[in-house]
Amino acid sequence: MRAPQSELSNIAADVLARVRARRPRVHCVTNAVAQAFTANMLLAAGAVPSMTVAPEEIADFVARADALLVNLGTFDAERRKAAEIAVAKAAEHDLPWLLDPVFVDRSPARTDFAKSLVARGPQAIRLNPAEFAALAGNEPSAEAAVLYAKTSGAVVGLTGETDLVTDGERLARIANGDPLMAKVTAMGCAASALVAACMAVEADAWRASVAGLAAIGVAGEIAAANARGPGSLSIAIIDALHALDRAALTGRARVS
Amino acid sequence: MRAPQSELSNIAADVLARVRARRPRVHCVTNAVAQAFTANMLLAAGAVPSMTVAPEEIADFVARADALLVNLGTFDAERRKAAEIAVAKAAEHDLPWLLDPVFVDRSPARTDFAKSLVARGPQAIRLNPAEFAALAGNEPSAEAAVLYAKTSGAVVGLTGETDLVTDGERLARIANGDPLMAKVTAMGCAASALVAACMAVEADAWRASVAGLAAIGVAGEIAAANARGPGSLSIAIIDALHALDRAALTGRARVS
Amino acid sequence: MRAPQSELSNIAADVLARVRARRPRVHCVTNAVAQAFTANMLLAAGAVPSMTVAPEEIADFVARADALLVNLGTFDAERRKAAEIAVAKAAEHDLPWLLDPVFVDRSPARTDFAKSLVARGPQAIRLNPAEFAALAGNEPSAEAAVLYAKTSGAVVGLTGETDLVTDGERLARIANGDPLMAKVTAMGCAASALVAACMAVEADAWRASVAGLAAIGVAGEIAAANARGPGSLSIAIIDALHALDRAALTGRARVS
Repeated sequence: MRAPQSELSNIAADVLARVRARRPRVHCVTNAVAQAFTANMLLAAGAVPSMTVAPEEIADFVARADALLVNLGTFDAERRKAAEIAVAKAAEHDLPWLLDPVFVDRSPARTDFAKSLVARGPQAIRLNPAEFAALAGNEPSAEAAVLYAKTSGAVVGLTGETDLVTDGERLARIANGDPLMAKVTAMGCAASALVAACMAVEADAWRASVAGLAAIGVAGEIAAANARGPGSLSIAIIDALHALDRAALTGRARVS
Repeated sequence: MRAPQSELSNIAADVLARVRARRPRVHCVTNAVAQAFTANMLLAAGAVPSMTVAPEEIADFVARADALLVNLGTFDAERRKAAEIAVAKAAEHDLPWLLDPVFVDRSPARTDFAKSLVARGPQAIRLNPAEFAALAGNEPSAEAAVLYAKTSGAVVGLTGETDLVTDGERLARIANGDPLMAKVTAMGCAASALVAACMAVEADAWRASVAGLAAIGVAGEIAAANARGPGSLSIAIIDALHALDRAALTGRARVS
Repeated sequence: MRAPQSELSNIAADVLARVRARRPRVHCVTNAVAQAFTANMLLAAGAVPSMTVAPEEIADFVARADALLVNLGTFDAERRKAAEIAVAKAAEHDLPWLLDPVFVDRSPARTDFAKSLVARGPQAIRLNPAEFAALAGNEPSAEAAVLYAKTSGAVVGLTGETDLVTDGERLARIANGDPLMAKVTAMGCAASALVAACMAVEADAWRASVAGLAAIGVAGEIAAANARGPGSLSIAIIDALHALDRAALTGRARVS
């Protein structure tokens, strides 16, 4: 089933408007490379980030948050422990959470840990084609994504030239973004964080994923139009996301 | 007692000039989110940052530093241990230090640790209203800040729309800055680091706090005037702080 | 022996072209302050960075990488262990690796650890004059660098106003760069990472070091020409490195 473009663009704009109005708290278990950029992107969208991974206090932070991001970027014993506590606390509080299995294609230990987290029931997973292949055990495609969404029970956001978002029934394609975005570190991590922020204000994780990925894709396009390279893009996308309004989002989103 | 505006602006300019001339070393126990921005802001001001939190070597770094910043942003077992070693070494070397009790309003474990650090005698504390309420146990106000400065023995820099700086006797108000600064992660952390740099060259921690907060407020205003959003602001404020001279600081500072 | 300028500039351009074509994976054991900037500089050059320091998985990452950077910036027990595993794995896979002994002048524990890593046989070492003095036990000079390259068996890249690159026989001088680069945190760390990327595609570590340092020096000059301060420089240098082509590199490189 495909929703019409205008409807999905409006949904995305609605969800972003709610993020701006409600200022949800998004707790991020993420890697040190991504922390500052992720925090700035969340702030630009209107959300409030927190980032602690200390086992002694992460439960308190998650309990006071509205959504949780678990990113495996710099995976170590403390972050693993933090992720487990955070996921347990999220379940206890019915908090939506998203898994970003960064670089699971590089290390079997990481793949195993990611699989154990998938079994804990994230509402959404966002990953790139290489990560999808390692985690799902299938070549990336729309069909494979639909199948993996069904078996995992999570909305799958498979990002690339065209992003695919599926809950196993519905499938959306988002054709926004710019190739230069791949030259900025933590761009995918920030996309995951935005989806988590959207999940805080939209109970349908498929709609939230479409909204978050459309927003970053459109902001990236606007930023790329004037960027002189990946450095200026990394700054301009924060500005563009901060300025992104309903007209720009619905006018530019290529979601189908 | 209120000092006249022109006198305080001149003091701020004097202190900043000394930072530029002496290039003090500021050792920062701070969170990973804030490290790069804090280091770049210190460098822009003329100071020399270091950031290690390894228990084996932090004492050596603090012993060679001119001021210490202890920021609880990503609080974990190692940073807690590092903070304790660093504070003990600072006391041994009569090194001024500042506490930035980030997010103490989010976790009781963090509040308790922050209180134990306050008892170790920082020369200054910089915090926002929510953190003040959690740490001081009082609603934030000028009166409450004066009282907390008296009971803690530290200069209190309570930052917000107007910053308040008090040592329990003197009270300064700084009305610089721009609302967009709150959309940049680690802006408060950088403000604390600048105050620490000023404490390295100015023994009166109240004057140092006024100078550091006026400098970042004025730099933020200059940056915001041309920023297209929080991304470009985060870069422009580094440029503005680097270029900040006596004329700009005394001409723009609204300190009373 | 001195190679003629035009030959060295052409070598640098050749090596950079190979980085762009082959997209080598560079695994970085580096400090949290430097991670994001280093990753963005590597991406701008055409390389693919990874940054994990988890002992459980670093061997897997190094085994899949084309070069290794070991930077002591925020040295702690986990990073020390990670560095040791990474260096052992690099030796096993004949992977070139570079040591950046950040701040060895600040702590004896750090100096000792750096010396133990030098004994493990890095193909190259990049460091500043203060770090050189602490590690080599000699005042920095061309003669001392040549001697230290001979005794350590590593190519030495001693960076400053003029960079010196020597393998104990050949000596190159690179007179590019801009003083404002020293005001950007992690600029030296990024230079080391670029050299590591060049080592992935050029077996002669002396040529690779010349190429990496010439590239960042030229990119820094181009960026500084339009920067309004260290903030905008830190962004413009990423753009300039991304856009750097053979004509710009050979036209501007002052290598002799």
